[in-house]
Amino acid sequence: MANQKVKNDAITSRDVDFAQWYTDVCRKAELMDYSSVKGFIIYRPYGYALWEMIQAFMDKRFKETGHENVYMPMLIPESLLKKEADHVEGFAPECAVVTKGGVDTLEEDLIIRPTSETLFCEHYAKIVNSYRDLPKLYNQWCSVVRWEKTTRPFLRGSEFLWQEGHTIHATEEEARAETMQMLDIYESTAKDLLAIPMVTGKKTEREKFAGAEETYTIEALMHDGKALQSGTSHYFGDGFAKAFDIKFLDKDNKQKHVHQTSWGVSTRLLGAIIMVHGDDNGLVLPPRVAPTQVMIIPIQQQKPGVLDKADEIAASLKAQGIRVKVDASDKSPGWKFSEAEMRGIPLRIEVGPRDLENGQCVVAKRHNGEKLTVDINDDLPQSISTMLDDIHEEMYQKALAFRNDNITKVETYDEFKNVLETKGGYVKMNWCGNEECEVKIKEDTSATSRCIDQSATVSGTCPICGKDAKHLVFFAKAY
Amino acid sequence: MANQKVKNDAITSRDVDFAQWYTDVCRKAELMDYSSVKGFIIYRPYGYALWEMIQAFMDKRFKETGHENVYMPMLIPESLLKKEADHVEGFAPECAVVTKGGVDTLEEDLIIRPTSETLFCEHYAKIVNSYRDLPKLYNQWCSVVRWEKTTRPFLRGSEFLWQEGHTIHATEEEARAETMQMLDIYESTAKDLLAIPMVTGKKTEREKFAGAEETYTIEALMHDGKALQSGTSHYFGDGFAKAFDIKFLDKDNKQKHVHQTSWGVSTRLLGAIIMVHGDDNGLVLPPRVAPTQVMIIPIQQQKPGVLDKADEIAASLKAQGIRVKVDASDKSPGWKFSEAEMRGIPLRIEVGPRDLENGQCVVAKRHNGEKLTVDINDDLPQSISTMLDDIHEEMYQKALAFRNDNITKVETYDEFKNVLETKGGYVKMNWCGNEECEVKIKEDTSATSRCIDQSATVSGTCPICGKDAKHLVFFAKAY
Repeated sequence: MANQKVKNDAITSRDVDFAQWYTDVCRKAELMDYSSVKGFIIYRPYGYALWEMIQAFMDKRFKETGHENVYMPMLIPESLLKKEADHVEGFAPECAVVTKGGVDTLEEDLIIRPTSETLFCEHYAKIVNSYRDLPKLYNQWCSVVRWEKTTRPFLRGSEFLWQEGHTIHATEEEARAETMQMLDIYESTAKDLLAIPMVTGKKTEREKFAGAEETYTIEALMHDGKALQSGTSHYFGDGFAKAFDIKFLDKDNKQKHVHQTSWGVSTRLLGAIIMVHGDDNGLVLPPRVAPTQVMIIPIQQQKPGVLDKADEIAASLKAQGIRVKVDASDKSPGWKFSEAEMRGIPLRIEVGPRDLENGQCVVAKRHNGEKLTVDINDDLPQSISTMLDDIHEEMYQKALAFRNDNITKVETYDEFKNVLETKGGYVKMNWCGNEECEVKIKEDTSATSRCIDQSATVSGTCPICGKDAKHLVFFAKAY
Repeated sequence: MANQKVKNDAITSRDVDFAQWYTDVCRKAELMDYSSVKGFIIYRPYGYALWEMIQAFMDKRFKETGHENVYMPMLIPESLLKKEADHVEGFAPECAVVTKGGVDTLEEDLIIRPTSETLFCEHYAKIVNSYRDLPKLYNQWCSVVRWEKTTRPFLRGSEFLWQEGHTIHATEEEARAETMQMLDIYESTAKDLLAIPMVTGKKTEREKFAGAEETYTIEALMHDGKALQSGTSHYFGDGFAKAFDIKFLDKDNKQKHVHQTSWGVSTRLLGAIIMVHGDDNGLVLPPRVAPTQVMIIPIQQQKPGVLDKADEIAASLKAQGIRVKVDASDKSPGWKFSEAEMRGIPLRIEVGPRDLENGQCVVAKRHNGEKLTVDINDDLPQSISTMLDDIHEEMYQKALAFRNDNITKVETYDEFKNVLETKGGYVKMNWCGNEECEVKIKEDTSATSRCIDQSATVSGTCPICGKDAKHLVFFAKAY
């Protein structure tokens, strides 16, 4: 019979080979499969259900904050993509190009959207005339294509699913507030839904989005000590507005350019869930994002009353709003336990003939292996509901402690290199603000600046060049 | 002040130029806009919200019937698309082809999915081994690309949004039952959500889906007497299973090929809603699919208490589960009335200073122009809710009567041509089952066989060739 202390042989151990462990979990938990086109994965039902949970949670928040969903074309004329110089420079090397349509060779190449700033800009220029038309707060759920050489499930793919918000505003102030509001929504989604604490801050000039004035990021820390950029929110100023001529007549009767933002999270979040919470038995899902929160596994299900009791418990949990399933398949209980573990289902309830006699059932917690014997009575749904909330909190606190233990502030570059090699995680260090020092760090260590700590008071010098420090920066190796 | 009897000048009259009226409604109700790539439209917030309503309704039914959502890659290798001969023959002329990825020319052309049978088949062949793995009931929400020469918003586009279900089963019987179940779900969605009565039946060999053994269809009748194919459900037999080698070990220990279905509806349904229910003042939305069911328009909103009362009514309706908005913008009430009409919002509530004094408000129904004075009290939410249900029923009955009035059974080919030219709608006529006669009808009249009436008892002869009739067929001109 399966037990949390026993390693599941189907997957590589996390500490033996983290990369292989990750791929094993992706495959064995049936989150994804490979297709015959490199870098294009299949989101299997369980993986897609996770994405649907994230979509539902975020879409509600987007709508509550006044955003509307739209759908823009999948294809962008090459000339349109080229309208904003920095933008096209950033994306040109990654484009998938359609050159034939039907029986004809196209007059102009069409690019499968790598991101849709240019399409939104073209549309906004057409539909906005007056301050009365502002703000426009649009979002789109879709897939985008970026031709990648090295790909990994959910983390880096040639096609991935995401949402991209694109908003335009009458004033800089409003657009800046939107940029920060969306960063906040991302951070709180990570915390409240995924039980993942984020490090947030501003990207350096070198790391910001192609065409943005400022990029803000949420960064998660994986179990192997590497960072994962998990969402970004950009302030564009009026750069795109000028390139695309998005103007409006303001209350003062003057023509002005709009101020713009964009922001996105993607199926990378699935990678974050796996690598923050997973263990040697597979996936461990935080309860709020788990498509199935409770799996009821009948023991000796052929015995009279067992399946009925399992169904009865399921019905009572469902009435409480809990996502519950009964595994009544003809597999052995041990097999079912392993499968529920691999899939990271937060709670497993076992119910067999002896439990029926005692009016009890066994509840096993996936995240810490704890097992409880619980009375089957009217209080059960509320107890399970409370347990799920507690599990969320425990998983978040564990991830938070891990993250905090893995932020190391250093004063010298030797110390920086030493911490990075021996411990990993975030290394916080002063920085002068010059790209040369940032590049040197990357070339020496492969670590990149993840973001600027904006709450820090900066003093002292940059350990690379010795000049005055302008920022305290989170550096890390990253996915 | 706007009034239902007065024609809205912003759009062409339906009876003057139906095609222009349709485009006007699409644009002026802000359902869509054109992009700079021909045939690729922008789904604006209001149009996309309609699609989201349809998605939510259908997705629930799909899941209730055991289906799971997945996401397959956007790109299909040319060789994969060619594996099933009939299938590729049907789709090859419509393909958008990616020939470059990043900085390289691709070794093999990749096709943007026109439909995803081949991707599902390739995946199923990998993951199915035993009867225990069956059935697989997968669905995907996505966009597809089919290069079209002549395009119209929602009706025919080079890119459109849809869902495509793909299922595999151990037996023919089960697969056939699935095909019919999904047709039923489509028909009842049209009736219960969109207030549209469908004609349903089997497609002829000539009209069936490329690669299918049988295709079933739901066909709606537009105001101009033309039919609109609105959804199809296909039974594939084991044709694709043999081409893609999808086999399983059955209970009897024999290797067998699976039996397969696919089924889809698309954003064409938005076109159906517009052309079945719309009028000379714009869109008319059935209440259940309307993103906003009630628009409250304050009169003299600057007067004390007016906006408060509007908000109070809105809150009470919202608590009843009604989708309600207050239009408190600085536009005139007349402008607001017109806009609510153009957007087809089922109920408009007017509330002004005099109404406050009397404790009443005016409720105007979009579908028939009726205006009522109603007390503002605790019963109001329930009254509005009942009105919305009644409106749905009235709209459905009106569309049903129109459809029934426009089905004409004929005995001779002269009669057929005469009815088609003078009256339009469906013309029911005997058919021998030979493609030659079907082609002659199309060449002579441009009408096509929409579907075979499977409930009919057939007698007599085919008016084209004089041979014994095999089927009674619904013919119509179609979009």
